Amino acid sequence: MEKQIVRVGLMGFGTVGTGVVRIVQAHQEDLQKQTGLGIEITKILVQNAEKSRSISEMDPLLTTNADEILNDADIDVVVEVIGGISPAREYILAALEQGKHVVTANKDLMALHGAEILAKAEEKGCDVFYEASVAGGIPILRALVEGFASDRITKMMGIVNGTTNYIMTKMSQEGADYADVLKEAQALGYAEADPTSDVEGFDAARKMAILATLGFRVPMKLEDVDVKGISSVSKEDIAYGKRLGYEVKLLGLARRDGEAIEVSVQPTMVAKHHPLASVNGVFNAVYVHGEAVGETMFYGPGAGELPTATAVVSDLVTVVKNMKLGVNGRGVVAPYKEKVLKADSEKLSKYFLRMVVADKRGVLAKVTQLLAEKNISLEQVVQQPYNNGSQAEIILVTHQAAKSDMDSVLAYMEGMEIVEEIKSCYRVEGGE
Amino acid sequence: MEKQIVRVGLMGFGTVGTGVVRIVQAHQEDLQKQTGLGIEITKILVQNAEKSRSISEMDPLLTTNADEILNDADIDVVVEVIGGISPAREYILAALEQGKHVVTANKDLMALHGAEILAKAEEKGCDVFYEASVAGGIPILRALVEGFASDRITKMMGIVNGTTNYIMTKMSQEGADYADVLKEAQALGYAEADPTSDVEGFDAARKMAILATLGFRVPMKLEDVDVKGISSVSKEDIAYGKRLGYEVKLLGLARRDGEAIEVSVQPTMVAKHHPLASVNGVFNAVYVHGEAVGETMFYGPGAGELPTATAVVSDLVTVVKNMKLGVNGRGVVAPYKEKVLKADSEKLSKYFLRMVVADKRGVLAKVTQLLAEKNISLEQVVQQPYNNGSQAEIILVTHQAAKSDMDSVLAYMEGMEIVEEIKSCYRVEGGE
Repeated sequence: MEKQIVRVGLMGFGTVGTGVVRIVQAHQEDLQKQTGLGIEITKILVQNAEKSRSISEMDPLLTTNADEILNDADIDVVVEVIGGISPAREYILAALEQGKHVVTANKDLMALHGAEILAKAEEKGCDVFYEASVAGGIPILRALVEGFASDRITKMMGIVNGTTNYIMTKMSQEGADYADVLKEAQALGYAEADPTSDVEGFDAARKMAILATLGFRVPMKLEDVDVKGISSVSKEDIAYGKRLGYEVKLLGLARRDGEAIEVSVQPTMVAKHHPLASVNGVFNAVYVHGEAVGETMFYGPGAGELPTATAVVSDLVTVVKNMKLGVNGRGVVAPYKEKVLKADSEKLSKYFLRMVVADKRGVLAKVTQLLAEKNISLEQVVQQPYNNGSQAEIILVTHQAAKSDMDSVLAYMEGMEIVEEIKSCYRVEGGE
Repeated sequence: MEKQIVRVGLMGFGTVGTGVVRIVQAHQEDLQKQTGLGIEITKILVQNAEKSRSISEMDPLLTTNADEILNDADIDVVVEVIGGISPAREYILAALEQGKHVVTANKDLMALHGAEILAKAEEKGCDVFYEASVAGGIPILRALVEGFASDRITKMMGIVNGTTNYIMTKMSQEGADYADVLKEAQALGYAEADPTSDVEGFDAARKMAILATLGFRVPMKLEDVDVKGISSVSKEDIAYGKRLGYEVKLLGLARRDGEAIEVSVQPTMVAKHHPLASVNGVFNAVYVHGEAVGETMFYGPGAGELPTATAVVSDLVTVVKNMKLGVNGRGVVAPYKEKVLKADSEKLSKYFLRMVVADKRGVLAKVTQLLAEKNISLEQVVQQPYNNGSQAEIILVTHQAAKSDMDSVLAYMEGMEIVEEIKSCYRVEGGE
């Protein structure tokens, strides 16, 4: 007899887990209609079975022993919303080993051990979906896999961390200082007490590693991502950026030229007319360029209990459909291409550069001469008095230049007597 | 024996039809992998079978007789890319009558006869998909059906006509006149020789009727959409809009408050910080607000052979998957809710109003007094000399006001001696 009910083991019963239970309960009929099968959560792994919960009718399903899920032959799908690396990694690998399909919301795990997990899934013919791990409420992984199935992705740019985007937006809109806005964000619960993972770009880097691995089919590791956070962005940079037509955003960039790839997360000057420049507050957006479709962008909430739980249930629906289609595992593509990382000389970008120089005749000429020697030409130049006219400030926007050339120019400038201080240097995107 | 091959009859073999054939040919293996079934185009309806074509190997499949497709019991799916109302409507209804599934790119047909077609599909248990009919390269209908399956959509705002958005963008960026930009757009092939359908908003209205019908499950008709085109938008309006923080866009709006619905297409002042304000050139974008997910936006190419053909093939893949799942027809939801249209007194919006008045003391006081009597309060007011100071110009941005109140104020003002001319009045969106 054909299977009528798909049985799900839920690991983790915090806010996202609770949301998943609620959505599955509330939409039984819809889910049946969409998939032709019923979905039943039959066991829930928790740390403490005695704790009182908002959904008490699930109490009989609770267990503190993962093996009760992993070794239960009746369970078809494991939904992991525990988070963190261990024991989530061990549980997921064990579930796959038992031929169970997996849905996870775990970005840390997928960024660090995604290749291992996808390879195991492929070996076992199981599904692994992880939509909720990147930009919770935006179905971006699904879009990359389905929407671009017959296309070739060349570039992805993402605002994939809500905390830093909230801070950059506030700094821009209110002309406020980083430290003040961070404090406010912490008070509002948009930033954690220890904000390092967000503000230093590590969280965004995890998501970009996941996007690049999936979009380019290359096993990108977290350490392959050039990361720079926002803690050094000043309100002056933002104000000058605006004047020249840019908004500063913590931008994730994954770009492929030929087979060579670069992935980075860094504060970036984004041209105001580019749709990413208007992504404000805690919102996320991912811009994708495909050879056939051209430019697309997906915008929405990056986190939150309901959007995240909705993404998990959507993945679950896909697993169930695949079970009925008999195509589980076919959508799982472990990265199979060789990883070719760009050298710095291949990383081309426009740059925004701000420096304070001695107020002497010919300084601007010397600076531009130096750039010209490295084949860096200029798109915009502003010079103005600084520090009551005792110094001058130069702001430059370059045409495309290689990172290696830019780095060597900066290193050389640091040693020039006429250059008092290099205040900032940002990549410029979205202006082509 | 279970079916191994799904047979497709293609109706229409122009650029989109050719694109569909190419994609199906090029991605056989992928399609098989995704669906577990092969997809074969077995007949192609053309007007002239003798015409020479870029894909000559399909010549044996060509027919000029629709019945050869409609009455062929081996054909499971009909893909209609002929366009227009008749005979496309008759063909699609006949195909459904025969139990064939339908994929169409036909926005005119779906806007005018969508309810009839969906009802027939529901009756026959057949699939009808029409992703390519709205914003070609953006999977927006799929997102509405799948992504928001467990949510309630309250508002959609769309830039869904590339021609008008190109014109508005050029006017904004270059401070150019409407007539000049239209001519340029015609020369570049972005606008047709007779641009009426685009510039008067009818094309956008069709797409908004389709979006509202699907998003709200209500049988919206084209005549339910308030339509105003862009031909009266002046470069002055755009310049004043910018000054106050807005971009003028031809914006489709579909909004539900309680069960009451309004759908309109009109030039609208969109707050600059809203992501829709940065959707430039021929690009399309649809912004969707759902009660659970909050704000999302989907951005991409609105037309083009490859994006449109890709959307058609994606629909075809869904039909094939549904065939194997045995769930055809279940995703088709003919609009089942009663249509409740808002009265003008329920249509709330902020407004931008520009008028030329006599340069007399107390004129501004009279105008604001009149607005206050209708409970319309003001957010921004600018008064300045006009016509070398012989007159004055007043620009107002109101807080939320009812359309009925605004209309009666405008009618009254037309008769006031001190009001020389009401230059323009726009809805304002995206500023909350």
